Amino acid sequence: MSSEPEPGTLRPGGRTARVRAAVLAAAGDVLAEQGFAELDLADIARRAEVGKTTVYRRWSSPTGLVTDLLAEMAEESLPRTATGSLRGDLAANARLVQRTLTDPRQGPLFRAVIAAATCDERTAQALGQFYEVRVSEWAPAVQEAVERGELPAGTDAAEVVRAVSAPLYYRMLTTGAAPTEADADRAVAAAVAAAEAGVYVS
Amino acid sequence: MSSEPEPGTLRPGGRTARVRAAVLAAAGDVLAEQGFAELDLADIARRAEVGKTTVYRRWSSPTGLVTDLLAEMAEESLPRTATGSLRGDLAANARLVQRTLTDPRQGPLFRAVIAAATCDERTAQALGQFYEVRVSEWAPAVQEAVERGELPAGTDAAEVVRAVSAPLYYRMLTTGAAPTEADADRAVAAAVAAAEAGVYVS
Repeated sequence: MSSEPEPGTLRPGGRTARVRAAVLAAAGDVLAEQGFAELDLADIARRAEVGKTTVYRRWSSPTGLVTDLLAEMAEESLPRTATGSLRGDLAANARLVQRTLTDPRQGPLFRAVIAAATCDERTAQALGQFYEVRVSEWAPAVQEAVERGELPAGTDAAEVVRAVSAPLYYRMLTTGAAPTEADADRAVAAAVAAAEAGVYVS
Repeated sequence: MSSEPEPGTLRPGGRTARVRAAVLAAAGDVLAEQGFAELDLADIARRAEVGKTTVYRRWSSPTGLVTDLLAEMAEESLPRTATGSLRGDLAANARLVQRTLTDPRQGPLFRAVIAAATCDERTAQALGQFYEVRVSEWAPAVQEAVERGELPAGTDAAEVVRAVSAPLYYRMLTTGAAPTEADADRAVAAAVAAAEAGVYVS
């Protein structure tokens, strides 16, 4: 066994946390700049200035790096914006998604991770968990609208949140074009109209 | 130059067409079974029982194979179903998308092509063109609904067609789960409710 402490035995900010942060930042850089196919553990160790043995022992494969990066993205997921209205909350979410997919680092990073998930089950699961965290963070916006009587009782809050993101991701993945603010606003208007019509009552 | 006739100089069903069909079928098989990373021209030539030189000369790279496969998919794109009602037409489209993404060969093939498009501009363009053909095939369903007065004048027909597909692709790409018939029906209901509310008037 190694002389390094087990993960989790150090306080946050300790060496283990610093190594993880450096390695995952390097992995994110490579994914964003070159894609999953170029993710190489020795290269990541060099970029992160971390021992190769540590990287191989802790992440073992490019897939291990991507799944841990997705776990970190879920952990660091920002709390939702609460504006007091359904349209305001969903607009904040849509603009956040739109800005993320348009960002020069985050956009290619999401495309790379989604691509990696298409050919690996473990990555697909980690990606699904990341989106579950994001959706459950924003679902209260819809639940509160139901409580205020703005939407029909029984509306599936998670489905409404997914409906806002779907056209933005679809546009990016099928046309390669980043979604615009107008796309984000239209996604919100469409999700609200469908929710008001009772489409998401389960 | 080679002794082989130029593409297009033989009648359909001639040797050139047969070679293309065999090579693209083999490329589709590899994409569906193993993904883009495993696409190798020599392997494709062997599977298709076609000379390696022919494959290298005509397609030159894995990307060349994928873009030509997407062009063939667009050429062979089925005409839309016309049922006489907007909901009927969009439901036929949604069920077709849902069956395609659920199909044991077509589902993985689409995931592989979308993944390949995330890291190559030429593939992204070919993919975008494929979806443009599909969308323009189905857009008349929406245009006819506008003419019948079922939807507001000025409704962007292509956006309504895309709205039907978006949640089905989003579910597949972010969770790895194939969309269900219930997802397809809900996608139609949401697109129609939003279109009726004027969300897609441009």
